[in-house]
Amino acid sequence: MTPPLAIALHGGAGILKRSKLDAAADRDFRTALSAALDRGWDILQARGSALDAVETVTRALEDSPLFNAGRGSVYTSAGTHEMDAAIMSGREGDFGAVAGVTAVRNPVSLARAVMEQLDAVFLVGTGAGDFAHACGMAVEPPEYFHTTARVEQLESARRSNQTPLDHDAEVEKYGTVGAVALDAAGDLAAATSTGGITNKRPGRVGDSPVPGAGTFADNSTCAVSCTGEGEAFLRCCAAHEVAARMRHGGAGLAAAAHAVIHSTVPGKGGLVAVDRNGTVALPFNTEGMFRAWRTSGGRGGVAIYRGEQGETASPAERPWAH
Amino acid sequence: MTPPLAIALHGGAGILKRSKLDAAADRDFRTALSAALDRGWDILQARGSALDAVETVTRALEDSPLFNAGRGSVYTSAGTHEMDAAIMSGREGDFGAVAGVTAVRNPVSLARAVMEQLDAVFLVGTGAGDFAHACGMAVEPPEYFHTTARVEQLESARRSNQTPLDHDAEVEKYGTVGAVALDAAGDLAAATSTGGITNKRPGRVGDSPVPGAGTFADNSTCAVSCTGEGEAFLRCCAAHEVAARMRHGGAGLAAAAHAVIHSTVPGKGGLVAVDRNGTVALPFNTEGMFRAWRTSGGRGGVAIYRGEQGETASPAERPWAH
Repeated sequence: MTPPLAIALHGGAGILKRSKLDAAADRDFRTALSAALDRGWDILQARGSALDAVETVTRALEDSPLFNAGRGSVYTSAGTHEMDAAIMSGREGDFGAVAGVTAVRNPVSLARAVMEQLDAVFLVGTGAGDFAHACGMAVEPPEYFHTTARVEQLESARRSNQTPLDHDAEVEKYGTVGAVALDAAGDLAAATSTGGITNKRPGRVGDSPVPGAGTFADNSTCAVSCTGEGEAFLRCCAAHEVAARMRHGGAGLAAAAHAVIHSTVPGKGGLVAVDRNGTVALPFNTEGMFRAWRTSGGRGGVAIYRGEQGETASPAERPWAH
Repeated sequence: MTPPLAIALHGGAGILKRSKLDAAADRDFRTALSAALDRGWDILQARGSALDAVETVTRALEDSPLFNAGRGSVYTSAGTHEMDAAIMSGREGDFGAVAGVTAVRNPVSLARAVMEQLDAVFLVGTGAGDFAHACGMAVEPPEYFHTTARVEQLESARRSNQTPLDHDAEVEKYGTVGAVALDAAGDLAAATSTGGITNKRPGRVGDSPVPGAGTFADNSTCAVSCTGEGEAFLRCCAAHEVAARMRHGGAGLAAAAHAVIHSTVPGKGGLVAVDRNGTVALPFNTEGMFRAWRTSGGRGGVAIYRGEQGETASPAERPWAH
């Protein structure tokens, strides 16, 4: 029997209301999500590793100016970019993460270098930058990370003295990218990358790079990448809670993921998750979540809003996955 | 009926073999542990909060040069001190943490200021230092953190080009301090603080400040503070795993804590934990763990080695707690 394959990605939850995203922008987002997904799927189909697939997908999303990670990262209150990323293998529980990284083109690959080259698993601040330099990671000048829309968001946030802009740029509040995958060897992996929150205090770290909060993978349960209000996901260890509900509570992936997003997390956001059978879950409690997924069972899609296929309103009502 | 009270603390696991700790040092450690415990117990008895109790205990241990946190912090490979700390309330899940902090006398109090004064919950690096300055945290010059023994450890580690010194200074490998408490209002709290690992790469963060890894509290399950190989505790979300085994698996505190330390964590260390009934658990898989505890049920003690009261070799064999 052919082993199941599956991949899912997100480009952030808490997006613009449908009325505010024009047709051209809608198309651009879907094209970028689909292209990133294809790169990961090609790796899985060639019997590549889930780890390579999630890193490649996350790099593709980091390289796009559309998403709040890598090139498209938002500005801190100091007018700088501080990026966080993590990657985890479900086979041995290997993990690598970086936080507060500047200039590095692909923070997720720096996280993987931490995982593979160091005894440490979590490096922050200038120490992470020093390691990036030591291992020859590609870096970019500030102009690379400059996007006019992000500057406008920063200026708007400064005027209103807020980090979030609830009414018209919710996407910037919860912007993150991430991916999960199951490969032909039966291994799971997860990766997450973010620029954080517009106008954030320098040094602020959310859930994305934290094992068990924004990123988690364990072959016996699931791989999870979260997006949303980082502080809320951190406080409840959201990604690990999905795995715990499966391992200790006997829940299936869809029920566990749904419960965490709709009951456990004390805030807004969503996640993508995959289990060892290739089941995919994509729950969110926001207006929408940029997402794409594909399984060898024939499921797949690209979606943005609530009500499109792929959101799990209730796993009992919508056992669509796998 | 008088509500139960309980408090427990640790000063690190993976200590010297009994033969290497002379009588004077043994006495000094027990005196310091006991004094710190008393300060927390006094707060609980006066109907103070668990949050105040764990902060006060952790500050007392940070102020002692004997333990690897605050004043007694070990040196990084750069010859500096980088400290990490966290505090969490089980009532609302409020959390605050800092990592990579220099000069601050009491990192646990900076973590509490993050929790109480910011929207962010986790601040790292220079951003954490800037916040410490902004909120008037007491800082100390490098001499304050200087201890001859720590310098000798750094020089020894540099000579052998290792971070850990397995054979004769295991205490420095897993040095951490922390506390958990249950107060008269039924609230749980946990706090952890550390200087990390001798000769660590600047920027390296272990489990101590990470919610769900080294520190966790939730009134419906337990409060936990861990000590040990930080990377191992991070990868398995050790503290949150204790709570998950209780919430989703129906385990009691002693069984859950024992399973995490003796089965889940892929490395050496221990933890202190307390539940809403005032049960205390103190499991470790090392030669010993500096520890002290007291409950209104009449239990209490100060211990260092395996075989003294207070270690939970097996909860079935030793249902001593509470």
